[in-house]
Amino acid sequence: MSEQEIFDLAIVGGGPAGLTASVYASRYKVNNVVIADLMGGMAFGATEVGNFPSHPEISGMELMQKMQSHAFESLGATQKNAKVKNIDKKDDGTFEITVEPAEKILAKSLIISTGTTHSKLNVPGENEFRGKGVAYCATCDAFFYRNLEVAVVGGGNVALTAALHLAKIAKQVYLLVRGDKFVGEMVWVDRVNKTPNIKVMFNTSVKEIAGQNKVEKLILADGSELPVNGIFVSIGHKPVVDFTMNFALEKDDQGHIKVAPDMRTNIDGVFAAGDVTDGSNYFKQIATAVGEGSIAANSAYKWLQLKQ
Amino acid sequence: MSEQEIFDLAIVGGGPAGLTASVYASRYKVNNVVIADLMGGMAFGATEVGNFPSHPEISGMELMQKMQSHAFESLGATQKNAKVKNIDKKDDGTFEITVEPAEKILAKSLIISTGTTHSKLNVPGENEFRGKGVAYCATCDAFFYRNLEVAVVGGGNVALTAALHLAKIAKQVYLLVRGDKFVGEMVWVDRVNKTPNIKVMFNTSVKEIAGQNKVEKLILADGSELPVNGIFVSIGHKPVVDFTMNFALEKDDQGHIKVAPDMRTNIDGVFAAGDVTDGSNYFKQIATAVGEGSIAANSAYKWLQLKQ
Repeated sequence: MSEQEIFDLAIVGGGPAGLTASVYASRYKVNNVVIADLMGGMAFGATEVGNFPSHPEISGMELMQKMQSHAFESLGATQKNAKVKNIDKKDDGTFEITVEPAEKILAKSLIISTGTTHSKLNVPGENEFRGKGVAYCATCDAFFYRNLEVAVVGGGNVALTAALHLAKIAKQVYLLVRGDKFVGEMVWVDRVNKTPNIKVMFNTSVKEIAGQNKVEKLILADGSELPVNGIFVSIGHKPVVDFTMNFALEKDDQGHIKVAPDMRTNIDGVFAAGDVTDGSNYFKQIATAVGEGSIAANSAYKWLQLKQ
Repeated sequence: MSEQEIFDLAIVGGGPAGLTASVYASRYKVNNVVIADLMGGMAFGATEVGNFPSHPEISGMELMQKMQSHAFESLGATQKNAKVKNIDKKDDGTFEITVEPAEKILAKSLIISTGTTHSKLNVPGENEFRGKGVAYCATCDAFFYRNLEVAVVGGGNVALTAALHLAKIAKQVYLLVRGDKFVGEMVWVDRVNKTPNIKVMFNTSVKEIAGQNKVEKLILADGSELPVNGIFVSIGHKPVVDFTMNFALEKDDQGHIKVAPDMRTNIDGVFAAGDVTDGSNYFKQIATAVGEGSIAANSAYKWLQLKQ
């Protein structure tokens, strides 16, 4: 039986934080693997990114392909497209990461950068019609709604940019905002207001998603009905730590991993970075994720040096 | 007398933090001006940047030109190439910024992102021969040393990349490291070790810089002499707040501006971001500066909304 490679560092999550951590680690010559079921993370699905400095307007897909290319092609980090199921810290301190498809990966240290996932409306019909009219990523699924009518639910940047993207493809877009104003950037609000086939409906909540085999209408909180072929839910995100562990990471009330200023967690050898943490004043941006990723890698590098 | 424009936000310092703050502010439709005597900041002079994610290798100049173009050409922020001399907070809360060439700029809120400056050796000859063989920026001044012999002082990334850049131009490069090892990234250390015309000298300090009208030799701590035509000092940085104020910003022992997690300072309406702050675990990187810049702009935006 051959001896299995032990990586210096395993980075769980391949979004902006994880890929930046890998870039820094590789440049420190820290042998690292990035494990993710979706390389590029949630940013990959962003219709358009306009606030990552040096790229005035770029699709999330293109930006994340550039970051992947930086980490893997230019700097040679190991890329593992797999879903993490469990992480055990063994008696000798090594982390054993079980992934699917079935494999075990060993590493001396860990950066968790698993980001966030889409929040759900939690209304009847949402789970039933997922993929049959209920969607969470406009970039990914807008294509299916050519010349149809769709609703977008949410009042932030993601909802605004989703509505703008869908307006180019769908016949009519309804932008349903629970409150009485938008919370996104004015640059997007302006564009939405100037787009003829986007109708903004403030103070509007969805009570039920209904139809036969696919979405046909929304039932709103006031009892009225809105006939649509699809609904894009863009109401925010919550942190993802969807694997089991034999150690207990400290988290805040919403489930964000608590980090010190150097991105240490409460577990020795485990660091965290990006949207999954309580860092950066909870301002979840690509710009803040790359900052946290760089700090986490630097801290892991110093930690590894002290262990040697 | 016409009424003078009052900007929503004045950003003092035009490096990665300041330009990112401007990008975010402009996208929030916050009317902002970026004031700097050197747009692009210290990053502008970086020979090569390899760790800003999405750009595997790019010169500091090109990267910062991209960020400037993003802030000014794409998003239309006001650019003011001037040196800030004084900032007064007036009784009505407005900030009055006096710059050189003589002008006064008014703003409701402030982000200070003035970064750091090169630390000096503080040895005889350093000030006397500045520009006559004593230099602090290899990107800027390497050109003058074609086929000559130069020393680089320092053991971090800036010294390593300066030595690599100079080795392409100068005949011989001496890399003088005070300690017995490098503190920079291994990727640069490897390249330095493989470069024939770089000679690394550990445990070596400069006692004096000597010559007639220009640098001719270094006198080392052990009394020995090293004949060189120039010396590049790359031993670190210290925070810059080189203007007067009628308010007292809280700072740490090294002079970094103290910031809360949302980049607030102790003065109402004044935020700070980038290398000049005590944030990001003191990890001074372009990646962390853009994170802090985005948070500061978001906080200034919220602060301005509450004032209206």
